[in-house]
Amino acid sequence: MALETFLLDLIIILVVAKAFGQLMQRLGQPFVLGELLGGALVGMHGLGWLPEHEFIHLLAQVGLILLLFEIGLETNLDTLIKLGPKSIMVAIVGIVLPLAGGYLFCTSMGLAPMSALLVGCAFTATSIGISVRALAELGENKSTEGQIVLGAALFDDVVGLLILSVITALVEQSRNPGAGGEHSILFVSILTLLFPVLAVLIGSWLVKPLIRMVDKMTVRGAMVVVSVVMALVFAFIAEKIGTSPIIGAFTAGLILARTHRADVIETQLKPIADIVTPIFFVSIGASLNIQLLNPFNPANQEILLIALGASVVAFGTKFLSGFACIGEGIRRSVIGVSMAPRGEVVLIFANLGLAQGLINQEWFAVLIIMIFITAMATPALLKLILSKNTVHPIGSYSEIPLAGYESEERM
Amino acid sequence: MALETFLLDLIIILVVAKAFGQLMQRLGQPFVLGELLGGALVGMHGLGWLPEHEFIHLLAQVGLILLLFEIGLETNLDTLIKLGPKSIMVAIVGIVLPLAGGYLFCTSMGLAPMSALLVGCAFTATSIGISVRALAELGENKSTEGQIVLGAALFDDVVGLLILSVITALVEQSRNPGAGGEHSILFVSILTLLFPVLAVLIGSWLVKPLIRMVDKMTVRGAMVVVSVVMALVFAFIAEKIGTSPIIGAFTAGLILARTHRADVIETQLKPIADIVTPIFFVSIGASLNIQLLNPFNPANQEILLIALGASVVAFGTKFLSGFACIGEGIRRSVIGVSMAPRGEVVLIFANLGLAQGLINQEWFAVLIIMIFITAMATPALLKLILSKNTVHPIGSYSEIPLAGYESEERM
Repeated sequence: MALETFLLDLIIILVVAKAFGQLMQRLGQPFVLGELLGGALVGMHGLGWLPEHEFIHLLAQVGLILLLFEIGLETNLDTLIKLGPKSIMVAIVGIVLPLAGGYLFCTSMGLAPMSALLVGCAFTATSIGISVRALAELGENKSTEGQIVLGAALFDDVVGLLILSVITALVEQSRNPGAGGEHSILFVSILTLLFPVLAVLIGSWLVKPLIRMVDKMTVRGAMVVVSVVMALVFAFIAEKIGTSPIIGAFTAGLILARTHRADVIETQLKPIADIVTPIFFVSIGASLNIQLLNPFNPANQEILLIALGASVVAFGTKFLSGFACIGEGIRRSVIGVSMAPRGEVVLIFANLGLAQGLINQEWFAVLIIMIFITAMATPALLKLILSKNTVHPIGSYSEIPLAGYESEERM
Repeated sequence: MALETFLLDLIIILVVAKAFGQLMQRLGQPFVLGELLGGALVGMHGLGWLPEHEFIHLLAQVGLILLLFEIGLETNLDTLIKLGPKSIMVAIVGIVLPLAGGYLFCTSMGLAPMSALLVGCAFTATSIGISVRALAELGENKSTEGQIVLGAALFDDVVGLLILSVITALVEQSRNPGAGGEHSILFVSILTLLFPVLAVLIGSWLVKPLIRMVDKMTVRGAMVVVSVVMALVFAFIAEKIGTSPIIGAFTAGLILARTHRADVIETQLKPIADIVTPIFFVSIGASLNIQLLNPFNPANQEILLIALGASVVAFGTKFLSGFACIGEGIRRSVIGVSMAPRGEVVLIFANLGLAQGLINQEWFAVLIIMIFITAMATPALLKLILSKNTVHPIGSYSEIPLAGYESEERM
């Protein structure tokens, strides 16, 4: 890749993210929707301004890691633990229903059981990135519902990736029997579930001397660099043991949030995240072949119909998980809608299925469209539900919470 | 490249940069020296923790672009223009002497005239990045000498790359005669020299409506993203027309420095630069084969001696350029030493020479060692000269300008 190409890619991504983000916000929609749509427009299958490239994909993942790090920094561990049981209920229902629903839908569409199982698994994980960003834009990320969703989405991400590693191990075992995979599956499962707990415990113990050391450092940017390094190290360890790097980054944020330097780190991290996270959202958008969305092309009609059905099943089953939440005065529909967007984990399952020959190109397209529909529906529906719950005096549009939140966020 | 590898590379680069930077500062040396040394230690030829990779190289270049953008933001265009004649004098002498010196040195070492010319050209360009960072660390970047050096280094960078494009065109022409290269050489030359002027004029005219537009934007991070995009666009255009992308980024910074949002942009850019620019310095360090520095290996002794000679010639001829500066009370030795470090441009020439068969691996190593010696000598010598010029009351080490500057820089 030439420097020229790389610079141009970065320019296109950032311009598209801000231009379409702003356009969507002007239209009263969350800006993350604009980043997704903009990405689809300029992506490989759209205008072709952004050909797929490994490097952009890597930077997108770093963008997601930094986004989760930032979310961790803004999260109160005590609240997360307090709401834990509620989150776990939502997460479990939000795994079982989409898995069952996805499996049944696929078999009824004529897919083989093993393939249907893979698609069902792909339905299980909420996209934390899209969900939390949509909530944050509406000022709901720190509400009870926002925190329950965050916990549940983190939990089903862990479980989703656990299922993925089990499936990968099973597939490998079926091809190479006698490799003794049970042990490693059990080991990875235990490690995956223990990782966030161990990371918080060990990290909290290490972070105080670390911050004391950084406080003594005189080189420029020591605080922000050391905290980003901590996020990258936790992400690296998580990736290494087979769980999700974003869980690691989130945990690093959680730990640093409890230090007396949390505010400084958050302020300095923001501009970095502003540059890197749009790469993730624009990339997700760019992975969609928007030409498949053209309903006037007869070749697309069957795929579109199946994709629409899959999206309804994926959205509906996750939406129901919100109602698994017990508690007074909780807006269950806010939880249900926030749990619905799918993203990066589906892409991982879809790529695995394609590589293993479990699904074909058409089903791959179905899954990508499903990501797109659920990811686009969530911010829009969330806005609708929340504005119904709020009474706006006529003529004071600029005073609705949304606008206030944004101008505060601007810097 | 797997995400795991990429994360690990980033972690190593950032840890090495801050750890060695801090160590050097503790030893009373500029931290950029630590980043170079640390890079050499962990690089491909050292511990091998940082294998060479295209992505890291690209990110390093973006790091350099953002560094020059930041330098531009801190530069006063009027001062630069006022000191322009002085800068140009320094630049011209700083091109002619190293070119002549390098040529004579190489021919006396038995190199063919065309090869000697290439090495001579490689000697012409000061590394703006290393020079300005060393000056800034000593609080000298905004002094008259600092500004003269900045102007001169920018000028010789433009001319150095101009020479490069002429050489490339000549080599291509000699292989493919009749391609009519004279026109394009003349065209590129004019474009290269006109680019900074045109960019400032057109940019200054466009920047006001741009900032007004951004001021109206409500999406998160609009100001920092739009200014980084502006830097990338200017860098892209510069690269496209065949001059250096860092000239483009610097010009973008110069223009934005004159807007009422300069402070906000500078504050938000800092953490981004803190993460990305160390990649450049650590990479430069990593390109050195430190095993060649072992004088006990007889195979190295000849290369080391030649490299030492080349470094003395490269340093000495640039040092003399400082004395081309006319004016009362100007510390000419500060200018001379600051002009001496070489960096990225030498790497470009060295790679070209190797690819075209003009130099062999041994001369390639000589050039890399020359980069290293001049780059390491500058910050150290600068510190020495400047501390001689300043009177420190005994026992108040913490009050010397250096320490004050850094703690202010920390945030």
